[in-house]
Amino acid sequence: MTNNNPAENFPAGYLAPEVWSWEPGNGGQFATINRPVAGATFEKELPVGKHPLQLYSLGTPNGIKVTIMLEELLALGHKEAEYDAWLINIFTGDQFGSGFVDINPNSKIPALVDRSTSKPTHVFESGSILMYLARKFDAFLPKEHKAHTEALNWLFWQMGSAPFVGGGFGHFFLYAPIHIKYAIDRFAMEAKRQFDVLDRHLANNRFLAGDEYSIADMAAWPWYGQLARNEIYGNGGKFLEADSYQNVARWKDEIGERPAVKRGRMVNRMIGAPSEQLHERHDASDFETKTQDKI
Amino acid sequence: MTNNNPAENFPAGYLAPEVWSWEPGNGGQFATINRPVAGATFEKELPVGKHPLQLYSLGTPNGIKVTIMLEELLALGHKEAEYDAWLINIFTGDQFGSGFVDINPNSKIPALVDRSTSKPTHVFESGSILMYLARKFDAFLPKEHKAHTEALNWLFWQMGSAPFVGGGFGHFFLYAPIHIKYAIDRFAMEAKRQFDVLDRHLANNRFLAGDEYSIADMAAWPWYGQLARNEIYGNGGKFLEADSYQNVARWKDEIGERPAVKRGRMVNRMIGAPSEQLHERHDASDFETKTQDKI
Repeated sequence: MTNNNPAENFPAGYLAPEVWSWEPGNGGQFATINRPVAGATFEKELPVGKHPLQLYSLGTPNGIKVTIMLEELLALGHKEAEYDAWLINIFTGDQFGSGFVDINPNSKIPALVDRSTSKPTHVFESGSILMYLARKFDAFLPKEHKAHTEALNWLFWQMGSAPFVGGGFGHFFLYAPIHIKYAIDRFAMEAKRQFDVLDRHLANNRFLAGDEYSIADMAAWPWYGQLARNEIYGNGGKFLEADSYQNVARWKDEIGERPAVKRGRMVNRMIGAPSEQLHERHDASDFETKTQDKI
Repeated sequence: MTNNNPAENFPAGYLAPEVWSWEPGNGGQFATINRPVAGATFEKELPVGKHPLQLYSLGTPNGIKVTIMLEELLALGHKEAEYDAWLINIFTGDQFGSGFVDINPNSKIPALVDRSTSKPTHVFESGSILMYLARKFDAFLPKEHKAHTEALNWLFWQMGSAPFVGGGFGHFFLYAPIHIKYAIDRFAMEAKRQFDVLDRHLANNRFLAGDEYSIADMAAWPWYGQLARNEIYGNGGKFLEADSYQNVARWKDEIGERPAVKRGRMVNRMIGAPSEQLHERHDASDFETKTQDKI
């Protein structure tokens, strides 16, 4: 360990033990649902609807990656992309039910079951679900060698980078019980660096993989686009001046105007205006009432 | 923001500003190389060797994912997987040279150039490189539908989870200038949860995708396997009791014994015993001297 002066630690005098032990309750807003062990904590079967694709999710940035993709596939005419979207309320612990853990042993949303295969196929991790759907429907993943490679470069970039934005910056800025300057500075710096990486790339590229809108954009938009729109993490977008990145702004506006993105963003959403919250989605017509609400 | 009592913050009285601003130097061991902006800081072309595949990397967990894959491909008889591995010393800022940034605008190792394509193909993000090589050589990615899906589930799981182990736990346990109990507890809890997720899965599966060794294992082993072997993050493995997860232990031992894994782990390595450090690799015979060193 680098630090040999416990007096400088926080709290002053803190000395890390040889072996860590859990003190339940130390964890800020998510203390009740974060644990050092995995697995189900209660028995509960998941509901199953009429469509081949069953999504169990919540309208967080990772969740709407998938609903945007499904709505884009439907908009493209892929009728087999019809889906039931069920709400998994992670704030009340739905992700620890036995049925959900059976699909995703990592207890995170989103999780997808494809019941059109001979045995139901379990798909978890938003990036894996995007890849699965792109392959299944042969859509939104460029075929040309360079563009295909770029789409995967940026899809994996998003998957490996956003934890610093969400579990890093978002947590220490918004959810931690106190503000720790060192942690906020560390993750704000990294979040801004990521915005700058995107901004420089989008200066020369309409979309992340080049000319073609792809699953890489669907993965990145819910994080960087929504942060630049000040829609996640409270005032976090303003704190980061996320709307100051001009090329990101152009990209987020273009994608944000897509009807499928507007619909996908509403699915399993539990925050914001009631007219934008479609807690469950079982049919294309489910959006209509919500759209009327807005008018 | 959740916190309205600056007296409880750290440092006491800290009040987050409306807009974040950079204070260079606040960042622990990596303060000199972490910045809130992207892009090259100096002009430097990268060296190019004789093989079609040019790897620019360092022997960190993310780096050796790729050298393990390349050595596995060579062990399988894929002669076209021959590669030059060049050292990118991230501690002295090699990742900010113009040649490297041209390949990976995110300035992180590993980065790969495939010069066998009509134009050189740039591949970055360890997960993307593993996918690229798996497709190029049609190897280490199961073909059967369920196993293929599982391999991608766990590959993406690794990519989205390890940032909490590396940039979270590793940073606050080993590299941060002081020990912040809240941050150490937060990320130790998450790291242990991830070990438990793996352990439960490996109780019923020989490898992450089932019976078949795949790029999902090559992605996860350098993190969880090496942490359980106490080879990264100082005493971090002991702090987490990482060797207490029995199924992870069985899996890490089996994979650790593979000759290709032993070779891959040496490439671009700058820490540990000199006999285990092969700073650059340009030919299969480069390992021989090192192996003799050991005897």
